[in-house]
Amino acid sequence: MYDVAIIGTGGAGYSAAIYAARYKMSVLLIGGRIGGTISDAYEIENYLGFEKIIGRELAQKMQSHAEKYDIDLKNDIVSGIQKEGDIFNIKTTQGEYKAKTVIVATGTIHRHLGIPSEEQFAGKGVSYCATCDGFFFRNKDVAIIGGGDSAATAGLYLADICKKIYIVVRKSFMRAEPFWIDALGQKDNVEFVFESNVAEFQGQNKLERVLLDTGRILEVDGAFVEIGADPDTKILNDAKKDQSGYIIVDQAQMTNIEGLFAAGDVTTGSNHFHQLATAVGEGAVAANAAFIYLQKNA
Amino acid sequence: MYDVAIIGTGGAGYSAAIYAARYKMSVLLIGGRIGGTISDAYEIENYLGFEKIIGRELAQKMQSHAEKYDIDLKNDIVSGIQKEGDIFNIKTTQGEYKAKTVIVATGTIHRHLGIPSEEQFAGKGVSYCATCDGFFFRNKDVAIIGGGDSAATAGLYLADICKKIYIVVRKSFMRAEPFWIDALGQKDNVEFVFESNVAEFQGQNKLERVLLDTGRILEVDGAFVEIGADPDTKILNDAKKDQSGYIIVDQAQMTNIEGLFAAGDVTTGSNHFHQLATAVGEGAVAANAAFIYLQKNA
Repeated sequence: MYDVAIIGTGGAGYSAAIYAARYKMSVLLIGGRIGGTISDAYEIENYLGFEKIIGRELAQKMQSHAEKYDIDLKNDIVSGIQKEGDIFNIKTTQGEYKAKTVIVATGTIHRHLGIPSEEQFAGKGVSYCATCDGFFFRNKDVAIIGGGDSAATAGLYLADICKKIYIVVRKSFMRAEPFWIDALGQKDNVEFVFESNVAEFQGQNKLERVLLDTGRILEVDGAFVEIGADPDTKILNDAKKDQSGYIIVDQAQMTNIEGLFAAGDVTTGSNHFHQLATAVGEGAVAANAAFIYLQKNA
Repeated sequence: MYDVAIIGTGGAGYSAAIYAARYKMSVLLIGGRIGGTISDAYEIENYLGFEKIIGRELAQKMQSHAEKYDIDLKNDIVSGIQKEGDIFNIKTTQGEYKAKTVIVATGTIHRHLGIPSEEQFAGKGVSYCATCDGFFFRNKDVAIIGGGDSAATAGLYLADICKKIYIVVRKSFMRAEPFWIDALGQKDNVEFVFESNVAEFQGQNKLERVLLDTGRILEVDGAFVEIGADPDTKILNDAKKDQSGYIIVDQAQMTNIEGLFAAGDVTTGSNHFHQLATAVGEGAVAANAAFIYLQKNA
């Protein structure tokens, strides 16, 4: 029986784990991927104290930081959480755990376009992570689908390693941070393709071209779908969510279920501003609140 | 005229400044002390990504991070903020500035005991910052007044450089983080003096002894008052505060005054959990909200 089970090893999960361990709580931390979304990020420049750091490097620092403490760290996937009496049962693919409190920090998952040819070419030219897969397309032509921050930063990264970059944007403008848009404007191998959607991915065994709904065809070897993310809440049937599926939390990061907290991108916290900085803060608040909750209910 | 004036150079202020600059807002950042409270901290171990870092070193990293951006950084003290029409006038000891939005990130100020002899010996043995002044008492006996985290961490720091440490606690126990209390227990030169208050600081020209209300006398050269902090809101007459004086903010870190935001320890945000992690997150949220506010009101 753990004092707290923390689900997710992104910024919120690690921060919560470190705070909980410092409170001398017994801590279980379960995650499938070191750093969560941060490990997909190319470079991070807006987390105070790090002027510029590669996503995976920061993810490794977060993991090392947590490893300094007495935390049971499991590389595992949670399949469900059930509260029975005052105790939470956490089922994973490898086992089952019990905890007095839970902090859900599962973050978000990449959104798909939802067209049939997308699944056909996934891993064969269609990717959801420029940082992970960009290098496979060195000196080749690629398309990025999306108009937000993740599309913009993918563009910046890919512009340095690929030959030609098309950024396919649904609207007539990018809605990314102005800083990123300016930086993209400096790249001479980036072409914006506005007011366009993907109609079909095409090719023999692997992606060869992207057909747009305007009729235009982009001859590319790779296509990066960067159209945002949805909260990963499939393990949590009972927690109250907003209409977009984010877990509703109060000031103490507590959900509608007593003893069940949530932190980071999966929640309605921090004014829905999903950043490493906000996730780390929310993780700290959740651990503090879980500690106080246990003291009151011991 | 700036898009945003940010008051305070602690974690919240720097984080807000970096986010605002990345939004291509024109940014004025005014602060009297690099890093704010962080520069008083001995070591910081709970800000994700830094396993252990000296407070002043982290403060310097924060400043360097901000200096990478196009930010007008002024070492100055704000004496008042007034809204006239849609514009904020910010008066400082050296001048006057105008801005369309303001983010107040002034943090907290050390609480004093409020006994007459305290002011008499301030700077002559009585200190409010162990990190700043501890080294003056190398191999000497000192007292720490307080029972919370700042008293505990001051104790840990001073235990390594001073001869004997008394920790004078009002209650019969410390209410610091268990991690800190355990660590203090490992030090053999630390003595807890529970259920005691300072009656008087005594000495000729400088502190020589501390008289407690129990009648006990501690023969010490230094006394560190570490009894918490109050929000620094004297420049803000019009913003709504809670009964402890913290500025009330909504999810977007906005105060009751349109265009006036607040972030960090000075606010009611993050469930009143005052940490570098929460300040940095709140600063990011405030900058994002100020950016959106300007777009809506441009």
